[in-house]
Amino acid sequence: MNVVLMVSEGQTEALGVGEEYLAKQSLGWVVTQYKMAIDRMPKVGEKVTVATRATSYNRYFAFREFWLTDATGKECVHVDSIWVVMDRNTRKMISIPEDVIAPFDAEVVKMIPRLGRPMRLAADEQLMEKQYRVRYFDIDQNGHVNNAHYFDWLLDALPMSFLSRHRLVALNIRFENEVQYHNDVISQAALVTDNQEPIITKHRIKMPDGEVATEAECHWQPVAKQI
Amino acid sequence: MNVVLMVSEGQTEALGVGEEYLAKQSLGWVVTQYKMAIDRMPKVGEKVTVATRATSYNRYFAFREFWLTDATGKECVHVDSIWVVMDRNTRKMISIPEDVIAPFDAEVVKMIPRLGRPMRLAADEQLMEKQYRVRYFDIDQNGHVNNAHYFDWLLDALPMSFLSRHRLVALNIRFENEVQYHNDVISQAALVTDNQEPIITKHRIKMPDGEVATEAECHWQPVAKQI
Repeated sequence: MNVVLMVSEGQTEALGVGEEYLAKQSLGWVVTQYKMAIDRMPKVGEKVTVATRATSYNRYFAFREFWLTDATGKECVHVDSIWVVMDRNTRKMISIPEDVIAPFDAEVVKMIPRLGRPMRLAADEQLMEKQYRVRYFDIDQNGHVNNAHYFDWLLDALPMSFLSRHRLVALNIRFENEVQYHNDVISQAALVTDNQEPIITKHRIKMPDGEVATEAECHWQPVAKQI
Repeated sequence: MNVVLMVSEGQTEALGVGEEYLAKQSLGWVVTQYKMAIDRMPKVGEKVTVATRATSYNRYFAFREFWLTDATGKECVHVDSIWVVMDRNTRKMISIPEDVIAPFDAEVVKMIPRLGRPMRLAADEQLMEKQYRVRYFDIDQNGHVNNAHYFDWLLDALPMSFLSRHRLVALNIRFENEVQYHNDVISQAALVTDNQEPIITKHRIKMPDGEVATEAECHWQPVAKQI
């Protein structure tokens, strides 16, 4: 995810509307949802290509795709994502300014593709949970938690016996509220079913006040024991 | 550190004595100490070269160097390290087998360079401390905690106000005892002095039973506030 995000940062900068350009207007792109399909993970030492496209947008939402291909051109991972522009002063979403989006040549649409809502944990569900404290190196230069760390929290809530025997094949994650430095967060997870494929786990990251920071749904396939 | 370690793994494999070769004999290389000098950290997007050399060894210890250079050939980071060979069955250090070390053409020496012991936290010292639990994604395929995570634990014990105003220029870290999955570790730190340069912090990672896993000493230089 870090590499994937660097590719879109590279594109916004190459088009002259990078982080610095937005920061001058006290604006920033914020991701609200990722939906990933993982055909296979790249191997250590493998050369892969990460590409991105600002596919379409409407007044408030921009739809961006990423894909990771191997040396033969075969797609290994595909990521759909939804982004909004935030006013850094009010911390509120604003309509996407024309100058910020125009250089991407994205299609103007009425509705951007819906990525679907992750399945939700029910109130009476049997939960696995672990607590995490945001660390200094989890935050980026704007003081926000790097998205990649949410994945660690989400997945680490599952037991080792599960993680070592399953391979993540799909992930749908929706960011609701921002986590801040030194917050304690609780990562909760529940297994929906393990007698049919794909195996599904539901996830939630909660803030100290009980507010939901993130919801996610993961799909898994069993693998031979790896660890 | 992840990239640096991949370079030495690449070398051991290229010489036919990689992890797989050692694993067949139930052996493994284990690092006991790193001493890093950081002239400057690479920038985002910068192309750097990481090189390594198995410099010298004696019966029990191998001395390996790493250096990271920029496009002009200038060295940005230099790492000295000391390694031993462990028998995976007994978890004990053994004398370095000839077949494992010969391909590196390293110099046989009586004494490998001493990297010095990190300054030690005193019993009565005013400590900053934070607790961490080893996460699933902290461990490698052998079930060991990836070295890079020790650095996170060590440095995150310092307050944000310090970390955001200082730049790490040197680090001496000694690994004493292995941390296992799901251990709780306590990362302790103390400021030696902040009225002279370099500013020095002393660090210790303790296991649940009080045993010391790691000791480290960090040198810092003040920088303009970054965050």
